[in-house]
Amino acid sequence: MAHGAWCMALLTYPLPRAPCPMHLTKCLSAKGIMKKVNIGLIGLGTVGRGVYDAITCNGDLIARRTGVSVAIRGVCDEDKKALKGIDLQGGAVKVCTADELIKDRHIDIIVELIGGVDSAKEIILSALRKKKHVVTANKALLSGHWKEIFGAASENGVFVNFEASVGGAIPVIRTLRESFVADRIDTIYGILNGTTNFILSMMAMTGCSFDEALKIAQEKGIAEADPGLDISGKDSAHKLAILALLGFGMDVFCNDVYTEGITHIGPQDMRNAARLGYSIKLLAIAKDTPDGVQLRVHPTLIMASHLLSGVRGADNAIFVKGDLMGESLLFGKGAGRKPTASSIAGDIVEIARHVAFFGNNNPVPYNLNYASGEKSVSPMEELFISYYLRFSVIDKPGVLAGISSILAKYNISIASVSQEERKAGETVPVVILNHSAKEGDMRKAIAEIDELEYVTDKTVVIRMEEF
Amino acid sequence: MAHGAWCMALLTYPLPRAPCPMHLTKCLSAKGIMKKVNIGLIGLGTVGRGVYDAITCNGDLIARRTGVSVAIRGVCDEDKKALKGIDLQGGAVKVCTADELIKDRHIDIIVELIGGVDSAKEIILSALRKKKHVVTANKALLSGHWKEIFGAASENGVFVNFEASVGGAIPVIRTLRESFVADRIDTIYGILNGTTNFILSMMAMTGCSFDEALKIAQEKGIAEADPGLDISGKDSAHKLAILALLGFGMDVFCNDVYTEGITHIGPQDMRNAARLGYSIKLLAIAKDTPDGVQLRVHPTLIMASHLLSGVRGADNAIFVKGDLMGESLLFGKGAGRKPTASSIAGDIVEIARHVAFFGNNNPVPYNLNYASGEKSVSPMEELFISYYLRFSVIDKPGVLAGISSILAKYNISIASVSQEERKAGETVPVVILNHSAKEGDMRKAIAEIDELEYVTDKTVVIRMEEF
Repeated sequence: MAHGAWCMALLTYPLPRAPCPMHLTKCLSAKGIMKKVNIGLIGLGTVGRGVYDAITCNGDLIARRTGVSVAIRGVCDEDKKALKGIDLQGGAVKVCTADELIKDRHIDIIVELIGGVDSAKEIILSALRKKKHVVTANKALLSGHWKEIFGAASENGVFVNFEASVGGAIPVIRTLRESFVADRIDTIYGILNGTTNFILSMMAMTGCSFDEALKIAQEKGIAEADPGLDISGKDSAHKLAILALLGFGMDVFCNDVYTEGITHIGPQDMRNAARLGYSIKLLAIAKDTPDGVQLRVHPTLIMASHLLSGVRGADNAIFVKGDLMGESLLFGKGAGRKPTASSIAGDIVEIARHVAFFGNNNPVPYNLNYASGEKSVSPMEELFISYYLRFSVIDKPGVLAGISSILAKYNISIASVSQEERKAGETVPVVILNHSAKEGDMRKAIAEIDELEYVTDKTVVIRMEEF
Repeated sequence: MAHGAWCMALLTYPLPRAPCPMHLTKCLSAKGIMKKVNIGLIGLGTVGRGVYDAITCNGDLIARRTGVSVAIRGVCDEDKKALKGIDLQGGAVKVCTADELIKDRHIDIIVELIGGVDSAKEIILSALRKKKHVVTANKALLSGHWKEIFGAASENGVFVNFEASVGGAIPVIRTLRESFVADRIDTIYGILNGTTNFILSMMAMTGCSFDEALKIAQEKGIAEADPGLDISGKDSAHKLAILALLGFGMDVFCNDVYTEGITHIGPQDMRNAARLGYSIKLLAIAKDTPDGVQLRVHPTLIMASHLLSGVRGADNAIFVKGDLMGESLLFGKGAGRKPTASSIAGDIVEIARHVAFFGNNNPVPYNLNYASGEKSVSPMEELFISYYLRFSVIDKPGVLAGISSILAKYNISIASVSQEERKAGETVPVVILNHSAKEGDMRKAIAEIDELEYVTDKTVVIRMEEF
């Protein structure tokens, strides 16, 4: 009944319109119905500062909604400049080392936001061994080392929450883990990288080149100075591995994902795609088929009428198919200080509620909780896929016959051919669409075609996805 | 450490590719690591049968993912025919009355799926008083009586889960309650009714009338024989009230929502909208503004390029804006046996995990947990909205002058005017767009215009929404 009493208090307690966190916390604490949970924040970069701001500014809201007050007890960052503007609240917030935060017995939750793999892994494992719950957004670490991390979490009976590791503010981890817990998931499509989606959207909208679009993205702070991880597709592969791990319940690491970037896409490909009724997206694809699991990240032609085609700019989206829920799409901001902080705050609050209600000596109701299955990843060469092919050829008689006879030799049928207006003797693009060929055959055919004397440039191969 | 041990077992326990539920449950039960939670299913209509099938067919998956086995201990339905095909598993599943299920001390969770308000309310309140957790999809009941229901849940320290009450398989309740817990939500847009979205999509696609589209929807089983609740917008209003309750944390009931249906939309309005770059959707709108809260359901013109315009057929979508996460859209199946069952199964599993880990004598970490605020709903007449107006007039000199002078009298400016090709003396439609007028003024102006002798039919007024 004591519980019921404070729940009802929350349900009916009259609150001022926009109370400050301190007001509310003190007010409810005085009544003995507000519970406080302490966090330690490791890393005060863009995202870390976002989390600091979110907890500080919206703490009253969280308290009102959940009955739990989340307090930042300590922060740490190697770069002392990162502390600028942090309000230490007269000593209530301590500045210390990661190790000190982990050892602080008043801290329940460690929030790791330093990124990278090695140091972050050490910090997280060390926190877990001290029975601290952990919140992280570190996809590179999780997609490569999840077994160690979740193993340590389970051994020590604590949570590792990682909603912000995939899709920024999009609640895809919680949705896969909880909402779709009764669904056999067979397909996941994701636009998981805002930088590449911005670049491709810019190319589609303005007709500019990849390099020009990248430059604009860098100027706008959407692409990093070294954009390698994004434009190579690796960042998307990290995220896809995490989604497949949850969705399919299988042993999978980022290295299992076939990965191809977007640097070879030209403005003419964007134009051709639009003319044919498609858009080009860097799509992360996971399919659980009777022949094995497909895991791949590559530029992909998708029908312009599909919802995923409407995901433009730096936004992300994840499309999931299950045997019960049918088709689902989650859309939102994929990165950025505030959206990522929103996700991380949600993760923190979930654990804070658990700690406030059950203390730290109770088991957590889940961690990864996925059994290793017997599923295995199909080799890319074995997959049957549809293709867009752009050949660069010198326009002269017999060219199309030469290309099509090599395609035929490898059992690759042609669904449509188009060629722009020609000036005799000049290089012209020939675009061929195919509606299903074996990837291995396609690679061999293209290698052979690219050796032909009238083929002037490497053929551009973009896979297509039919929904 | 015992906990850690079984968690690791789940993490690494080798399972056959598709084990039957019984195999897995027995196998893990024998090892003492599978916990069983019993449910009672009240109502075996379309959705109830879907839940029965979901738990029966995908129970192994749920067990593997969560370590909890959900068992249907009893079912009940007033219509004995509804029991056809239910496998009673040699007596393991009992057929009894709602009252017997509620009183069964082995049952932890009551799943109410009979619909309607009075009996359902009685059943739910009776279950809560017996300290049974409840899962329901009953939006009519919740949006009208949530205070009583959640009050009783809090008093008795049990959960009421209701994900399927809004947006079928779309995880919007969990997302608002948990993922966006740190966000100040200021805007919610929803396409919350599959029947009306199907009808409007059909009208847009084929050019047919409302009546024709409704007939097709009924033939396809998408609209009920009595479609009143759907086409009047009331079903959407029920759902919007629940979303506003969660998103804004305010006292709100379905009767607070201004509600208008879609029966007055003509094929010519769909054509006009398309020509102007818009689609027409039955949009549920909730906005928390400094001037008050807007809650309204009405046909709405939205830009064709917006993601919500791409939500076609019986699908649903919910668009949410928050101060941290920015803009988010959740899309999926809004109704149907399997999608609704997916959602309900997710709700059941959430509670089952809690029961399995913490027993029934522990507090629940949340229920509604929203304090009554001081927010109030703005009267519809006071809102400033954009409008599409279609006047039916006899084409003669002075008509446009007459209409526009009345609009001007009420401070309604004209953004654009279009009139189809005219045959002198015949009735012609005149379409006027306006980019912000006070609803009260607009109503007065239209009433006055509709009295003009050359106005041959009631003016069609459709509100517009700019994102």
